[in-house]
Amino acid sequence: MTEVESKIFPIEKLREFCIRVFVHCGVPKDDAAQAAEVLACADLRGIDSHGVARMYSYFGMLSEGHINPKPEIKIVRSTPSTTTVDGDNGLGLVVGPQANRIAVDMAEKCGSGWVGVCNTNHFGIAGYYVLQALERDLIGWAMTNSTALVAPLWGAQRMLGTNPIAIAFPGKEEPPIVIDLATSAAAYGKIEIARRKGKPLPEGWAINREGRNTTNPDELIDGGAMLPLGSERERGGHKGYALAMMVDILCGPLSGANWGPFAPPFALRQEIPKRSVGKGIGHFFGAMRIDGFIDAEEFKRQIDEYIRVFRATKPAPGTNGPLIPGDPEREAEQERRKNGVPLIRPVIEELREISKKAGIPFD
Amino acid sequence: MTEVESKIFPIEKLREFCIRVFVHCGVPKDDAAQAAEVLACADLRGIDSHGVARMYSYFGMLSEGHINPKPEIKIVRSTPSTTTVDGDNGLGLVVGPQANRIAVDMAEKCGSGWVGVCNTNHFGIAGYYVLQALERDLIGWAMTNSTALVAPLWGAQRMLGTNPIAIAFPGKEEPPIVIDLATSAAAYGKIEIARRKGKPLPEGWAINREGRNTTNPDELIDGGAMLPLGSERERGGHKGYALAMMVDILCGPLSGANWGPFAPPFALRQEIPKRSVGKGIGHFFGAMRIDGFIDAEEFKRQIDEYIRVFRATKPAPGTNGPLIPGDPEREAEQERRKNGVPLIRPVIEELREISKKAGIPFD
Repeated sequence: MTEVESKIFPIEKLREFCIRVFVHCGVPKDDAAQAAEVLACADLRGIDSHGVARMYSYFGMLSEGHINPKPEIKIVRSTPSTTTVDGDNGLGLVVGPQANRIAVDMAEKCGSGWVGVCNTNHFGIAGYYVLQALERDLIGWAMTNSTALVAPLWGAQRMLGTNPIAIAFPGKEEPPIVIDLATSAAAYGKIEIARRKGKPLPEGWAINREGRNTTNPDELIDGGAMLPLGSERERGGHKGYALAMMVDILCGPLSGANWGPFAPPFALRQEIPKRSVGKGIGHFFGAMRIDGFIDAEEFKRQIDEYIRVFRATKPAPGTNGPLIPGDPEREAEQERRKNGVPLIRPVIEELREISKKAGIPFD
Repeated sequence: MTEVESKIFPIEKLREFCIRVFVHCGVPKDDAAQAAEVLACADLRGIDSHGVARMYSYFGMLSEGHINPKPEIKIVRSTPSTTTVDGDNGLGLVVGPQANRIAVDMAEKCGSGWVGVCNTNHFGIAGYYVLQALERDLIGWAMTNSTALVAPLWGAQRMLGTNPIAIAFPGKEEPPIVIDLATSAAAYGKIEIARRKGKPLPEGWAINREGRNTTNPDELIDGGAMLPLGSERERGGHKGYALAMMVDILCGPLSGANWGPFAPPFALRQEIPKRSVGKGIGHFFGAMRIDGFIDAEEFKRQIDEYIRVFRATKPAPGTNGPLIPGDPEREAEQERRKNGVPLIRPVIEELREISKKAGIPFD
């Protein structure tokens, strides 16, 4: 098995292992199950960087007391349609779902609900939260800020996280449209893969520590930065930068969390910012009742038609035509539920190390 | 004066001319003043494509009965924090500000307000609406869909508008952060300018009618399409496409307006889509009380600090460092309020033609 080769694991086995590890770290059983569910959602949907591949960081942060395993989540402030939650430095995988439920509950009562969260940690994939809202027949929104990795357009240092935006819309017969995108030009996971394979990065993804464009993944990792969606000025890099800032402000200053370069690191070995301007990192959740705007059945019929019309777009040469956002993840989920989740060797080795330290069998 | 040379006009003169033209077309005086204010905002802020440069289309659409000069705007449905408005096929410049005020009023009462609008027309710059929310000390959101010009990633035809997203955040001592971006790789106005100058387009902006990349603006105009933010797959073109779709669904299916390729054209000579799936085009406005989340003074102090920290980013080589979103527009406004608004010759000629037809002096 080469470094990037993979071995396949049934999702239930991964989920069970995560639950036991979280419980071992002092997380209450229900919270552990919730956290493992968010990770499983990422692994099933093919977002490999955000599933069990992150257990090593969660385990390390919990073991060394950087994350509170038993947070008491507090509502800091609220109006009928807005709330701020202090996550008591809990796992984002536990705090996030609770905060998202508050948004959903408010939406059911007064049409929409918007929740800022401070004093929290990485929450997994943003897509998980909007899928939860869909189960309550609501349009869900989810955003989070994160450790700085991305340079603003015309900047030469890391100032913003990859700050994702997710939103989902239900169809009636068609599967939902599920949008979940980082506001950077590329996902950080792809940079790690290029580095492991010794391949250059595509143009437009990264700058080096001097702020010059680079295709060398090592230069990015060694003090360089990722570029925002759009990459350079001519292609709209200012737009990706502005979107990342929008997410950062809704998650950070609006909730009382840290923002920009002050977002605390997620992994243990990363440098801790010299300043703190708030509590933990931040999330922002929204939920809207469809029938607060239009008959819900009528909306879903239109979304069915929307999906069919976009699938019927004339394809660009050499392609099968446009996908609908959420297609690749849904296909991955169908496949992986049946056949299991492939994990690459470095991830397996990390899980084995956790297994040894925690005394919980893995492989 | 060559075709792209410009002549300078005081904003008050342009505004007065627009008011008189709208009134000539049957628009009530107050509505005419409102519409002219939205256009003046674009001209002052340097968004030349969305100001008086569009009077020719508004005038034509009103004169030929395609837009209702005296709309009776109706609330179709509402909850405490959501509303759908039917714009009665009025000017977007009139319907938009009224709908935005409903969002702002709801936010003051219950923390946030979200308004979908159907049966409306082009509303000027999205930035105008979030600046209005700022005047009420709220965080404002504005989006609109529009005539299809942009291809989905891997598509070879126009399926989406340039569908902008705007949001603004107030500072205390610093000027506000004002984000207003089209979800396409470039603004359509820049393509028109390249064409007039006979210059090629940058890579990543456009495809031709076969769906192949092109740098020839004529090929775009002749049945080609613009590319979404991110351009190709490797640079995140799927993300720009997904953002454009998000805006389209919030504005179209959610309000009962047309969407995607069925959004009606704004200019008179454009082809009318063969199908209608809703009423007019659609907008989506939001407003959130800052103190629904955090002490408003504390938030504004953080935004001041945010702006200062980002301005102090280490600059990329050959640049002066990152701008704050809204900087160029605010600088344009200061300059143009003092010195006037430059109009290019084709725009002046169109205004002269309106002047002649309407019997209202212009130059």
